[in-house]
Parts: sequence; C-alpha cells; structure tokens
Amino acid sequence: MDSKRPDRRRFLKGGAALAGGLTLGAVEPVVGQLPGPEGFIKGTDELIAYGERSRFVDSVRIAHPPGSRPSPDEFGLVFHVAAPLQDSVGVITPSSLHFVGTTRGSFMPDIDPRKHRLMIHGMVDRPLTFTMEELKRLPSVTRTHFIECAGNSSRSDRRTAQETHGMTSCAEWTGVPLSVLLEEAGVKDGAPWIVCEGTEEVKGSSSIPMAKAMEDCLVAYGMNGEDLRPQQGFPLRLMVPGFEGIFHTKYLRRIKVVDRYYMTYNDYGHLTQDPDTAALGYQIGPKSLITFPSGGQELPGRGFYEISGLAWSGGGAISRVEVSTDGGRSWSDAEIKGSANRMAHTRFGFSWNWDGQETELQSRCTDELGQVQPSRAQVAEFFEVPLGPSFRVPGRDNSIQPWRVASDGSVHNAIS
Amino acid sequence: MDSKRPDRRRFLKGGAALAGGLTLGAVEPVVGQLPGPEGFIKGTDELIAYGERSRFVDSVRIAHPPGSRPSPDEFGLVFHVAAPLQDSVGVITPSSLHFVGTTRGSFMPDIDPRKHRLMIHGMVDRPLTFTMEELKRLPSVTRTHFIECAGNSSRSDRRTAQETHGMTSCAEWTGVPLSVLLEEAGVKDGAPWIVCEGTEEVKGSSSIPMAKAMEDCLVAYGMNGEDLRPQQGFPLRLMVPGFEGIFHTKYLRRIKVVDRYYMTYNDYGHLTQDPDTAALGYQIGPKSLITFPSGGQELPGRGFYEISGLAWSGGGAISRVEVSTDGGRSWSDAEIKGSANRMAHTRFGFSWNWDGQETELQSRCTDELGQVQPSRAQVAEFFEVPLGPSFRVPGRDNSIQPWRVASDGSVHNAIS
Repeated sequence: MDSKRPDRRRFLKGGAALAGGLTLGAVEPVVGQLPGPEGFIKGTDELIAYGERSRFVDSVRIAHPPGSRPSPDEFGLVFHVAAPLQDSVGVITPSSLHFVGTTRGSFMPDIDPRKHRLMIHGMVDRPLTFTMEELKRLPSVTRTHFIECAGNSSRSDRRTAQETHGMTSCAEWTGVPLSVLLEEAGVKDGAPWIVCEGTEEVKGSSSIPMAKAMEDCLVAYGMNGEDLRPQQGFPLRLMVPGFEGIFHTKYLRRIKVVDRYYMTYNDYGHLTQDPDTAALGYQIGPKSLITFPSGGQELPGRGFYEISGLAWSGGGAISRVEVSTDGGRSWSDAEIKGSANRMAHTRFGFSWNWDGQETELQSRCTDELGQVQPSRAQVAEFFEVPLGPSFRVPGRDNSIQPWRVASDGSVHNAIS
Repeated sequence: MDSKRPDRRRFLKGGAALAGGLTLGAVEPVVGQLPGPEGFIKGTDELIAYGERSRFVDSVRIAHPPGSRPSPDEFGLVFHVAAPLQDSVGVITPSSLHFVGTTRGSFMPDIDPRKHRLMIHGMVDRPLTFTMEELKRLPSVTRTHFIECAGNSSRSDRRTAQETHGMTSCAEWTGVPLSVLLEEAGVKDGAPWIVCEGTEEVKGSSSIPMAKAMEDCLVAYGMNGEDLRPQQGFPLRLMVPGFEGIFHTKYLRRIKVVDRYYMTYNDYGHLTQDPDTAALGYQIGPKSLITFPSGGQELPGRGFYEISGLAWSGGGAISRVEVSTDGGRSWSDAEIKGSANRMAHTRFGFSWNWDGQETELQSRCTDELGQVQPSRAQVAEFFEVPLGPSFRVPGRDNSIQPWRVASDGSVHNAIS
C-alpha cells in the first residue's frame, strides 16, 4: 500500500520539486572539513559509574496541570508531573522522563528495600509476607506497558503535546505475576476483590477485581532494566495493564483478598451516579496522539515530513492507526512501527509532503477489540451536549487531538 | 512442557518441604504495622524536570578490563566501561548503565547538534549533507538491538558477570534506515563497500559491506526514548545489527561509498592471517549468560530460585535456550520471556530448586540459523589446543559461561 510503504526514493526529490530548492539535503558535498566538536567531555569516575545525557539536550518534564506550582508544604512536590511527549522517539519513555501521578497530599516515601515487606492476606489459605530478595527469586515476567492518568485530557487552552497528553508514559516492567503470589497464598473460593495498599500517608489503595488480578497484573520491581525509580514506587509497584493509572499502586506493601469492593481514598473524584461517565471504568480507551508535528513546534518550510505519533489502548494491542492531513475529511493508514504490544504505546509514522498551506493534522486508532478512537464531536453528540472551546470530554478523554499547521509553519492546538 | 511451564503452585511448598522450613514467604502474617519509609524525598524542580534513582540503588558500571585505570592524560577516561549485567532485569539496558567502548586514545566529543552534519558521498549520483533536524524529518524505524564489543570474553581470573560479559548491552534505537539515505544519494552500480567516519580524533571509521548497509543498518539519533547519550555517540551513531561493536560508528558524520575495503584505524588488533580466527568476522555468535545466580552473588539458602539470564546472537533471533544445573551433564529448555527480537538481548528463566549441594550452572542458546553456542571444551577441541585455566578462546568468545554454586551459597566463575 502506498500509504504504508511510501516510495522512499521519492521524498527528497518530491520535496525539492515542490519547494523550488527547499530540499532536505544539499546536493553539493561540503567543501573542506566537516564540523568538529565544541570540545571534549572529561571522563570522570561518576560518568564511568552512571552516565548522563548531553548538555545540549533539554527535554524536561513539567508540573501538571500547566501552571501548577510546588505545594506550599515542606516537601514542595507538585501534584502531577507530565512527560515531554513532543520530544519522544520510539516506544520507551526514559525513566527520568516518565510521567508522575501522585496521590493528593502525598510525596515520595524514601524506602530502604532491605526493610520493605509485601504482605498478602485476607481471604487466603495462608497469609504470606515477602522480602524484596524473596520476590526476586520467584518466576518473573517482563512486559512493555503504558500507564495513563485518567485525568489526561485535552482542552482548547493547552498548548503542547506535553500539556494535552503528558500524563501517560510507557516502560519495560519486570516483576512477579500477581497470580503466582495469589495462587501460592491460596485464594478462598469466590473471593471477588483485592485491595492493594502502598506505603503512603493516604495508602494509595485501590480495589481491583479478582479476574483482573489473576489475568495479567504484575508486582513490579524493575523498570527499563533497573530498579523502579522512587517516583514510580520504589521498591515495588502494582501494574494493572490497561487500567487507569491510579490502580497501579506505588510503594506496594499489602494486598488483601476481600469479599467486596472497598471504597478507598483513591476513589475521590471518581464517583458518579451516571455509569456512562464513571471515570472509575477501569480501562483506558483507544487513544492516539501525533507527537510530531505537535503544538508549539515549528516546521522550517514545506516539503517532506514523517508525521510521528503514539497510539495505545487498555483494550489490548493497537491494530490500526489512521492519519488525516486535511482536518478529518480524508483518512489514510499510517505505518505501525515494529510490533504493537498489548497495553503499550505503539509508534506510528505517516509520510507527508507539506505544501505550505494551513492545514490540520489528526490521528485516530483502532484496538484489537475493534474499538475506534472518537472525535470530540462524536463524544459531544453521544452526550448530547454542545461542542465548543469550553466543551470538556466527560470522564476519561480519549478523543482525537487535532493540530493546526499555520502557513508560517507554526503548530497549534486546533481544539475550538 | 514441564521445564518451560513449571507448576507455579509448587515452588514454595516444594521449597519448604525440601528445606525444612527455609521457605520463601513466612506463613504467618506480620503482627501489627508493616514497615514504613525511612522518611520522605523532597520534590525539587530538578526532580520534577528529570528524575533520579533511589539512594539505595548502587548498581554501577566499572572500568574494563577489571582493574584498569583512568588514562593519565587530562581527559581521564578509561578505555572501556562494563555494564552491571548481574543486576539486570528484562531486556533493556538503562542508557546510564549501557557499556561503553571507546577507540583507543579517544574520549568523548562534546557536539552541538545544531552544528552537526552527516555527509554521504563517494560513488553516489548526488552527494548529500544533512542537518540533525533534516534527519529527524525522514522516515524512521525503532528497533531493539544489542551491541557487543568483540573483546567481551571470559577467563578464569574474572569474577562477576560484569567482569566476564559486561561489554554488551541492549537498547531501543530509533533512527533513519541507512538504505533510505543511500537510495536518496543514489549508489552507483556495483559499489561494494561503505566507510563510516565519526567525529573523533581517530575518526572511528569502519568499512562495511554494501549488502549489510542496505539490509538493516540504522543511522540512530534516539536511544531508549530520548536522544543518544554522549557515551553512545551523541548526536548520531551507526547501528550495524549483530556485527561487533566497533562497526557501530559513534559521532557519525560521514559515509563514503567506495570501491574496496578500506583499512582503517579500527582494524588494529583485528587482523590475522588465519581466517578461522579472524575477529573481524563481523557477526557476533550465539551467546548466553546466566545473570542470576552469577559470580560474586550469594544464595541465602536452599529452596526455589528462578535462574535468569540473557541470550543474543548476531545471526538473528534466539530460538532456544537450555540450562544445565549439573555442570553440563543434562540440559533442559529454559523459558524465553516475551518475544525474542532479532539481534537483541533475550531474557530467559528457568525454575530451579537448589538442594544446598555444590553444583555448576550453565546456559547455552541456539539462534534462528540453528547455530548453537559452544562450550570452551568444544572450542579448544576445534582449535586443537589444550583446555585449562590459561586457555583463552581465540577471536570472539561466545563459549558457555559456567558458574559454580558452593554449598555455602556463594557463586564463583567455574572456568578452570
């Protein structure tokens, strides 16, 4: 298919022909010597032990929502921290740039892993406690999964991909399947729920259905090939693939098998009388985002660009991504890069020759269940509310994010 | 199969029965409160921008070979830096812990990416130069690949997995297929080689066959979801999947299409009259390593352990990993964790009940070409040289690494 496998020989020449000289590559070789370095980086014991990024790389996380400030207490941690998705490449989010969702009023426990314990008790045949060393001796699995905060939503007053969608990230997680631990403890017949508790002031607890606990949950101690980071729950967090972020209990120390749904602090803000809008609906819907070009970026001129983005779904693997370069009037299949892992960010690309005219870029995805990402207009129609700049998607927002490319190459949030 | 899918309900009870009380989990719940944190980590602007690991995590790289020192010149960088594979989990090596191979006498160029250029010239229809911004507009791919230094070899006087095998790592790389750039420049008919040059004093150049260049080489600017690190060639390096590390030119600035193999500085030490022992044989052979339990680690007692390790091959994907827990007398299939990517580290696991007696652990792998990792004895027999503590595998060493578990639980390099 043309849209999935562009004729790669054409893109530069096409760009040159269209743009009258605005090519990507100069057609003449550089005369003389190529540029050299600014200098040299001195190797130190610290750089040998644990490396750092270049001083020229300045991609950083920001407080979320945009404009929020460190809390006034002595700990100074902002509520949430958003990942710079506009700078992302590939699928993995570096651990240092992974988004952070904190429980309101909470901060980061500083845990000595030698003292940490995980207890499994409640409706089980034999309660168990584990040290970290014991957990690491058990059968492990490694899987790539996204986490997303249920509040990750776009609005007309947000500017960049980081501001609209920065509360999701993706990492390679390693740990023990929760089913292994529950089977060892022996779950009593018919026990329908578990409650998980973290080592936080508000405990970070969540109720999770037993079916999900046994299916694919993970008691994770590893992230991107090393120990979990403190901002991600060091030394132990629960992974609940595809469920909204608040279920992924950090600083995990206790799992109780219980006979009913337990309401916990984590349910704040999630309760609603209307089941259609219940944010505590567990699963994140199919969602995609163009990360390049995205709001706040600048295209240097017309010509060839690979549009790049991320797609993910709590429903499983992404099966299709489509891109529109004309504001949603026509759609073409994008190329899914590499293998689409279940409940993982999936990178897509789409070859595009920009003609220099103002236009609007959109992406939408479909997951293995056949769920299709909706537009904001479709959501508004479903809820029978007027669409406009002040329209906020009720509950979890997985609507299509439009980016407007102005004729000067600047890119803007096109929600209006 | 039993060996691939152990009965997970059995491992704790089995361990308890065997060890007379040395269970993994206490059978009584903790009385009273579970341990709390040592304190709390203050959120700072720096930690919001770019996170750090826990102060309790001390896994670090070391100078390689073991005992080597920073060079006496003003730059102070040691020759090579080895990754702490004994602490690894999953497949990805964190960028801060990725091994570093440097060209002898070299150090890290400090490159401003806005000034950096990549030139493609020589036997092409039209020479091209690219800025970094231009490269990032082109069609990209993301792939997980290992890199390994050809000198990554084990010996009887090396102690840990880091000392024996730390000169390999695995990351998610993102960049432009080299074939896209070469096709755009238009390679002249029959041009058989390319020479690649880095921005280093000794240029870091290597000759690469055109067939490989067109097949799967990558001009990479991204690593584990962010820009390449300076120690890995920021802002641009060549990926030559499965070929020995020295081909993966760092600080890449020039690719010349040429009519013959060009001998370069990088060929030092690789030349040999004997084709059987030529280290410049390009492809890394099938190789595996048990990372837990491995040399220098301690098992706290008999009972259940998941043996964990890595396997990889320059020949493609790993198709099988076997483990022996009796010094190579018998072998059973290990479980391959997740999908085995081509030319990538592949995690394997093997359920083991240690009876407390001294024994020897080994792993061996087979790749998709059917190549099987050899033992040191097989290599010695092939080369018709005596096997002993002083035996060094000629050329690239992909021989089986044995670890001896002593009855006190200490683990040792069993090469003798």
